[in-house]
Amino acid sequence: MTQSTTFSNPPSGGRRERKAEQTRRRILEAAKKQMAQGGPESITIQVVTEGADIGQGTFYNYFKSRDDLVDAVIVDVVENLGRRLDAMTHGMADAAEIYSFSLRHLMHTAVSDPVWGWFMVRLGIAQEGLLNALGPRASRDIQIGIDSGRFDIEDVKLASAMTFGSLLAVMHDYLDTDRKEDPSSAYAESLLRMVGITPAEAKEIANRPLPILPELPQSELL
Amino acid sequence: MTQSTTFSNPPSGGRRERKAEQTRRRILEAAKKQMAQGGPESITIQVVTEGADIGQGTFYNYFKSRDDLVDAVIVDVVENLGRRLDAMTHGMADAAEIYSFSLRHLMHTAVSDPVWGWFMVRLGIAQEGLLNALGPRASRDIQIGIDSGRFDIEDVKLASAMTFGSLLAVMHDYLDTDRKEDPSSAYAESLLRMVGITPAEAKEIANRPLPILPELPQSELL
Repeated sequence: MTQSTTFSNPPSGGRRERKAEQTRRRILEAAKKQMAQGGPESITIQVVTEGADIGQGTFYNYFKSRDDLVDAVIVDVVENLGRRLDAMTHGMADAAEIYSFSLRHLMHTAVSDPVWGWFMVRLGIAQEGLLNALGPRASRDIQIGIDSGRFDIEDVKLASAMTFGSLLAVMHDYLDTDRKEDPSSAYAESLLRMVGITPAEAKEIANRPLPILPELPQSELL
Repeated sequence: MTQSTTFSNPPSGGRRERKAEQTRRRILEAAKKQMAQGGPESITIQVVTEGADIGQGTFYNYFKSRDDLVDAVIVDVVENLGRRLDAMTHGMADAAEIYSFSLRHLMHTAVSDPVWGWFMVRLGIAQEGLLNALGPRASRDIQIGIDSGRFDIEDVKLASAMTFGSLLAVMHDYLDTDRKEDPSSAYAESLLRMVGITPAEAKEIANRPLPILPELPQSELL
């Protein structure tokens, strides 16, 4: 259901539902802000309810626990980014280009918005929400490359793990030091080499003009 | 000073010094055990002093704080491994072989000893002690490859970060799933491709017989 139909023809209880969704979003936004500032460990129900200006009792109408909230934040941020990447690469034919564009956008999002970047880096390589949102997409894109004969690798899981781990490590290196140059293309170039693209072609593909990441329609937002 | 000279010719106060070193090691071992079980966050001074069977007052004779202890654990474990890698590769001529052997041993140590592997994975990509022990060594080995014309890359820091991040992510993937095959050679092969070695040669180098990691003499242990 799009937002416009909600407004033009509100269902029974629509106002209450919108209010509930607004409260849920306020809690999520407070948690995202806290996570960006202090890392996932710093998120407590008390901090978040104070940030969202709601009572602790209200909190439990929306989330079962503190961990439930943290998972929801991760799904919210990373899954929406994943969907935007899916929308961007939909219809593209070359697996190397799909892989490269997606990696560059993931990296670019982090270095152009340090709040988002630190969020990812702090979650770390063992964070399930992050792995679940990005891992299957990376594996899918790598598998397309293998099936189309474009990539020359044997172990999709290994390549997916290396893609993910190096993503976070390069983000961390960029955010933690005084690097000024966006590492997105150099990062994608390195991974294209890893999956078997020659160095010359990897450089060319990784430096193609990057398509804009489309916004999702309201109806597809989580 | 080696252990044997210590025993045959104890210096003035030698007995007390040995006792102090034994107590420090007991604290470190208790902390390592706790870190392996519950991750770095689970280390508290209370847990460690109970594990080492000492009083909290005694603890502060050896470490300034809880964080000081955690840093010491990391230095102890990772720096000793780094020194053993240095001893192994000392005198080797080919940068690609040095890089490959070191990466394989790092990975192999983690997958053959899950306690050590989880320890590394839990510390994560942003852990300074880990970065300080492994980062400069990776950068050094990559720089040797560039200077000798063996590696074809432009950004040592990027390659070093990707080496480190993918190391931890592959460790995590191995430890967290039911993978049975040691990923050490496949991991090294991927990174050799990344630094510009052709896929055929990368496979060959990454599957050469792996030299044994030498033990350090007592005098060089931390």
